[in-house]
Amino acid sequence: MPYSRSIEKLIKAFSKLPTVGPRTAERFVFHLLRSGKKDVGELTMALKNLIDNIKSCELCWDFSDQSPCEICSDTRRDQTKICVVTHPQDMQVFEKTGEYKGLYHILRGVIKPGDEQNVKFLKIKELLERVKMPTVEEAILALNPDLPGETTMMFLEKKIKEQNPQTKITRLARGLPMGSDVRYADEITLGSALKNRM
Amino acid sequence: MPYSRSIEKLIKAFSKLPTVGPRTAERFVFHLLRSGKKDVGELTMALKNLIDNIKSCELCWDFSDQSPCEICSDTRRDQTKICVVTHPQDMQVFEKTGEYKGLYHILRGVIKPGDEQNVKFLKIKELLERVKMPTVEEAILALNPDLPGETTMMFLEKKIKEQNPQTKITRLARGLPMGSDVRYADEITLGSALKNRM
Repeated sequence: MPYSRSIEKLIKAFSKLPTVGPRTAERFVFHLLRSGKKDVGELTMALKNLIDNIKSCELCWDFSDQSPCEICSDTRRDQTKICVVTHPQDMQVFEKTGEYKGLYHILRGVIKPGDEQNVKFLKIKELLERVKMPTVEEAILALNPDLPGETTMMFLEKKIKEQNPQTKITRLARGLPMGSDVRYADEITLGSALKNRM
Repeated sequence: MPYSRSIEKLIKAFSKLPTVGPRTAERFVFHLLRSGKKDVGELTMALKNLIDNIKSCELCWDFSDQSPCEICSDTRRDQTKICVVTHPQDMQVFEKTGEYKGLYHILRGVIKPGDEQNVKFLKIKELLERVKMPTVEEAILALNPDLPGETTMMFLEKKIKEQNPQTKITRLARGLPMGSDVRYADEITLGSALKNRM
């Protein structure tokens, strides 16, 4: 005999979240049952809120409560630079550095070799529209330095050049991360770090 | 700059779940944003359903869509036995064995030495009411064989005897688990297994 219908349904819904198996989902449900209606209510309201309020920013494709989003509508930001990132979470990491005051473009994924279907969900066309604007001078391609990331950056570079040859295209520097050990650095990273020594 | 309000709120709500930190909560939210309104809607509905439908069974204190719950209202079950367990999840484990056809009582926790406040939330009074009933012959104390569990079982044994001296009080056998190794068994377990050899 399984649990009651309401419990089983919620276990199933929680199990769809990443890293959550049926056992963890079960723990979530019984935690909520123990903690009472306030916590369940809070979670329900927050989810409802998400459905009702979250939109995609029409410019950068970040998820936001407003469109254009806060960053895109902030005129104090440097309108000449667009930093292209894979996910909305990546943008947060750049914001936390405090080093960047330009705009962003969320690609919503990368081109996966062997999965060309995926390309049409990426916000590439939208990026090319933005680099056409005369205010934009530089596109910083900040995707991950791995195979899909590099492939996508090469593709974007070609497309941006076709669209607007005046655009300066840059990438993140490759070098040794803080606290790392030269002995364990791979050759490509170490080679780049040597070439771009400061 | 943090995420939008709707996103931050949901991250906070998810972070209250056990084993979920802010990073995991963030992953949940962006997974839901990517997977679209259907998944968010399903989770919201399941949570709402839980608030609206789940009750505590007035007899065994399991969480259920109905009260008395399915097991308590099933007249084919052996009404002479009550198996006392700590959590609703424990009941499921006994059900899966297929070895037990009696009733249950969910204590909703154990007596924690040094935390006497906790005792008043346990369904002890309700258990004692049930063992007064003439149909009940045996109480199986199936709490965990650890310090809080043993303390609670000793306390329950005393109370049940006071309430109804006719009640047979049993505990789960202690012995070697399947697939275990005699060399690594602790003395108490091995001593019990020897004493209760079959």
